[in-house]
Amino acid sequence: MLIRRTDLALEAKEIWQESAEKTSRLPGVKATERRSEGYPVTRVDILDRRGEEALGKAAGSYRTIDLTDFWQRRDGFFERAVRAVGAELKALIPDRGSVLVVGLGNGAMTPDAVGPLAADHVLVTRHLLSAMPAHFSGFRSVSVLRTGVLGTTGLESAETVRAMVEQTKPGLVIAVDALASRRMGRVCATIQLTDTGIAPGSGVGNHRAALDEAALGVPVAAIGVPTVVDAATLAADLLEESGAADIDPERLRQGHANFMVTPRDIDGQVRDLAKVVGYGINWALQELDIEEITALLS
Amino acid sequence: MLIRRTDLALEAKEIWQESAEKTSRLPGVKATERRSEGYPVTRVDILDRRGEEALGKAAGSYRTIDLTDFWQRRDGFFERAVRAVGAELKALIPDRGSVLVVGLGNGAMTPDAVGPLAADHVLVTRHLLSAMPAHFSGFRSVSVLRTGVLGTTGLESAETVRAMVEQTKPGLVIAVDALASRRMGRVCATIQLTDTGIAPGSGVGNHRAALDEAALGVPVAAIGVPTVVDAATLAADLLEESGAADIDPERLRQGHANFMVTPRDIDGQVRDLAKVVGYGINWALQELDIEEITALLS
Amino acid sequence: MLIRRTDLALEAKEIWQESAEKTSRLPGVKATERRSEGYPVTRVDILDRRGEEALGKAAGSYRTIDLTDFWQRRDGFFERAVRAVGAELKALIPDRGSVLVVGLGNGAMTPDAVGPLAADHVLVTRHLLSAMPAHFSGFRSVSVLRTGVLGTTGLESAETVRAMVEQTKPGLVIAVDALASRRMGRVCATIQLTDTGIAPGSGVGNHRAALDEAALGVPVAAIGVPTVVDAATLAADLLEESGAADIDPERLRQGHANFMVTPRDIDGQVRDLAKVVGYGINWALQELDIEEITALLS
Amino acid sequence: MLIRRTDLALEAKEIWQESAEKTSRLPGVKATERRSEGYPVTRVDILDRRGEEALGKAAGSYRTIDLTDFWQRRDGFFERAVRAVGAELKALIPDRGSVLVVGLGNGAMTPDAVGPLAADHVLVTRHLLSAMPAHFSGFRSVSVLRTGVLGTTGLESAETVRAMVEQTKPGLVIAVDALASRRMGRVCATIQLTDTGIAPGSGVGNHRAALDEAALGVPVAAIGVPTVVDAATLAADLLEESGAADIDPERLRQGHANFMVTPRDIDGQVRDLAKVVGYGINWALQELDIEEITALLS
Repeated sequence: MLIRRTDLALEAKEIWQESAEKTSRLPGVKATERRSEGYPVTRVDILDRRGEEALGKAAGSYRTIDLTDFWQRRDGFFERAVRAVGAELKALIPDRGSVLVVGLGNGAMTPDAVGPLAADHVLVTRHLLSAMPAHFSGFRSVSVLRTGVLGTTGLESAETVRAMVEQTKPGLVIAVDALASRRMGRVCATIQLTDTGIAPGSGVGNHRAALDEAALGVPVAAIGVPTVVDAATLAADLLEESGAADIDPERLRQGHANFMVTPRDIDGQVRDLAKVVGYGINWALQELDIEEITALLS
Repeated sequence: MLIRRTDLALEAKEIWQESAEKTSRLPGVKATERRSEGYPVTRVDILDRRGEEALGKAAGSYRTIDLTDFWQRRDGFFERAVRAVGAELKALIPDRGSVLVVGLGNGAMTPDAVGPLAADHVLVTRHLLSAMPAHFSGFRSVSVLRTGVLGTTGLESAETVRAMVEQTKPGLVIAVDALASRRMGRVCATIQLTDTGIAPGSGVGNHRAALDEAALGVPVAAIGVPTVVDAATLAADLLEESGAADIDPERLRQGHANFMVTPRDIDGQVRDLAKVVGYGINWALQELDIEEITALLS
Repeated sequence: MLIRRTDLALEAKEIWQESAEKTSRLPGVKATERRSEGYPVTRVDILDRRGEEALGKAAGSYRTIDLTDFWQRRDGFFERAVRAVGAELKALIPDRGSVLVVGLGNGAMTPDAVGPLAADHVLVTRHLLSAMPAHFSGFRSVSVLRTGVLGTTGLESAETVRAMVEQTKPGLVIAVDALASRRMGRVCATIQLTDTGIAPGSGVGNHRAALDEAALGVPVAAIGVPTVVDAATLAADLLEESGAADIDPERLRQGHANFMVTPRDIDGQVRDLAKVVGYGINWALQELDIEEITALLS
Repeated sequence: MLIRRTDLALEAKEIWQESAEKTSRLPGVKATERRSEGYPVTRVDILDRRGEEALGKAAGSYRTIDLTDFWQRRDGFFERAVRAVGAELKALIPDRGSVLVVGLGNGAMTPDAVGPLAADHVLVTRHLLSAMPAHFSGFRSVSVLRTGVLGTTGLESAETVRAMVEQTKPGLVIAVDALASRRMGRVCATIQLTDTGIAPGSGVGNHRAALDEAALGVPVAAIGVPTVVDAATLAADLLEESGAADIDPERLRQGHANFMVTPRDIDGQVRDLAKVVGYGINWALQELDIEEITALLS
């Protein structure tokens, strides 16, 4: 079997099911589907060690919102997407306490910029609460960290987050990152939310060490947006679809390792989805409606 | 046969040769190979109507510099690339007269930004010659036009170029644009120079109408850098390589039409190649060495 | 008297009145004040040659909206500002025919970036009307030109505008530019609209030749936003206020010529005012309300 | 006396000397002048408590390089400036041990962007030394932190720096920041280096808490570039020069508090000086010449 790269629990489950031998039921995993604000939501809960081994992901709840329809820009598409993201996030996090929002990835490289761009839409309140506690008592304390990338900082993202968690002692970390999907149809058309944090090696870049409760000592929610397909993964899927059998998977991977597949309008799509994520975080944390968020951010 | 999209004469010739029936010699086309400054250069001259029909490109000279080795950053890689581009350009253009350099494409979308980014490295002298003719008499008059894109201007690039040519009456237009290649190995690793100008529908965006001597009334050289592979072209090539025969080409194209394949480090690579192109233009036009160009641009 | 630099007709009138000898009534000029959407509007009409000579500006109507209150962000501040700009513009231009909107100035230098930034908020429709005339029949044809600056193009702004007017034959040009004021209180707190176009030497940069009906053959409305005070003008005003009499004006000017005075938050203020201008243009041209504009621009 | 705002020890000394009563020798302060690489260097050493009180700055060595001539771009102007900065820095810091370079200020606001822009030119080696210690053994370990600004992070710069110092335990911090000068002639024409770190309230923004050895537990060198004059400081100086005596200083300050005076070409000048600072840091830390630095940064 050709090795495929995916950061989505949903796809890890698909890959498991596609493998010919595994006709039996997937143990330790529970999956359900429903709609939220008009968008399909798939929930994959990894319940135990068996589920972790089958899917190669940590135990926890993974919720994937399908935003394919978002791009048709029908009535309320933006507000509905914000509420859908906000509602899933709210279900995964404690309902009080201060929050550190972390934008992971490289703001100068579009497919990796979801994290820093989303961070720009998050209402920052920690300094206001500290300066004028009475005036801002209705707000939850939120600070924002943009970690940058190893090549321009010399600092691992996980190191930077750990340092700021130890210094500022938030009750929760929400990390936003770009992901890789195996299917072009999910690129810039999906948002995954999870309460497991982020494992090493995820994302477009390589953020290395874990950002999870074990590493940081506080709950970590993660919001991921797939922005690329590995060219190698695309090639593998195309070849399997076509029934080609005798391709050397390693040679295929080598030829494509430095390439990625993205939407032609990646800049516009990443910008719009980052705004949905940032607003969704505000919706979940501050109990504000979308107009109030817009007014406060301007 | 699956339809493939390429802007490179070199690849149009490859595709012609790959088609099984065409074992005979390609008529009306002359191709040669050599090295310049350590980089391989392939020259495809389309001599007549037969060559135009076979390759689907206008008659003229197409020179493709293979910069694969550029990225190994060996001694003098940048200066050698500048001189290689400069020398091919010099061979294609009149050796005196004023020049309008046109940066085509969308500066806000990396794979389409080669044109505007290269324009930023071009020595602009027209206004200096006009204000202080004696002082700058050693320079060729150069002005620069960045056309922007239809969606944000409402103006066709060709219309804008035609307007400026009529207004300022340059002796030559040099147009710089992003191209699509069929092979990932050529993306951000090739520069094509031609004396035919640019035909409709080329490039990542759609610049529509022709930019050539027939349309503008002055010679038009074009410098193109492939920055993307069509996902559909990639898929078609992969499937043919693997011997898959019964794929519906239209369905394949539809599923991938809005996607493109680019290098992971597209931002850095486009930035570096745009500098090579801009410096190469200065080298060809102004008879300056690379250090002098750097000093004048700072 | 120390020479002061202003692009506002309002200030030219003030300066005339301040000069001790001119106690008589200003001939050939009519000035009125009123409010629009809660913002004060001063209208200075220069009626004839006497008015032109007294104020050093071309005959025509100059309307200055005082947006000082804008920054208090009270209810509807943005929508009201858009309608105020839109209504003054509408009164100055023909009510039908195609329009070329020109963003003058340097987008890379904040105090000079009002023009290009406003252009980014203008609904571009010319290409849509051309491709789908029935579908977009309710819209006025609008195209947008960003001229760039002489140092990076070698082309005078006026030359570029003239070329595009000749090529595309719009019925009206609307030019947006940054201005210099003599008073800090008016910087980023005022918008001037006029039907006279733009005279040489205005603005932060130096756009040189005239953009007016005489030069272009079509009516030219101009929208200007003061973003700087000359440091020399500031110094002169301060010294006169303080009664200092024996300062050498030329020495004063020399020491300050390369400096300007801007608000600390120039980036944010220019961005917000450019949006007001762009939306105001849409409001005047397309008969859309602010929500519709936002939806169409996203 | 009108209160003036300066971050330069050199100017604090000037102001002390200008006050009429202080005709005596300034106690606890030693000042010397010399040239380095063709640029004048003024050294002000604050030796004890008396010097601290007189100048309102912490005891330590302050070296101010006068780069007025830099803008004439004479032979070797850039390399000489880099070596001048590098040599002063080297004299102020330990000659071995790992370093955390901190870029303070707001990268999105030009006059406050010196810190983050300089950081972009610093050779980052910590991750390379960690991954390939043998290969990079000739380099000093350097990591880079861009703190961002309170309004978009909710985190004090000092808090962020303290967190990273505790986490990564560097032997030295080098902080780069924008300063305010009292004289337009020094804006973008001066670089101050000191071994005292940075005190609260310095800079264009307000970075609040101290970044010095007492706060961080490691030596802190600071490199500051004046990029603005307070409009209020300018006004005060102009009025005193002109002999105006009866101005209310508070009223003057209020009218100008939200304005600043900057060079017209602030973007270009800040960009060039940030490069001088970044290269100067590399020169001091890595014992590389300028060509080697350029090659490693590309």
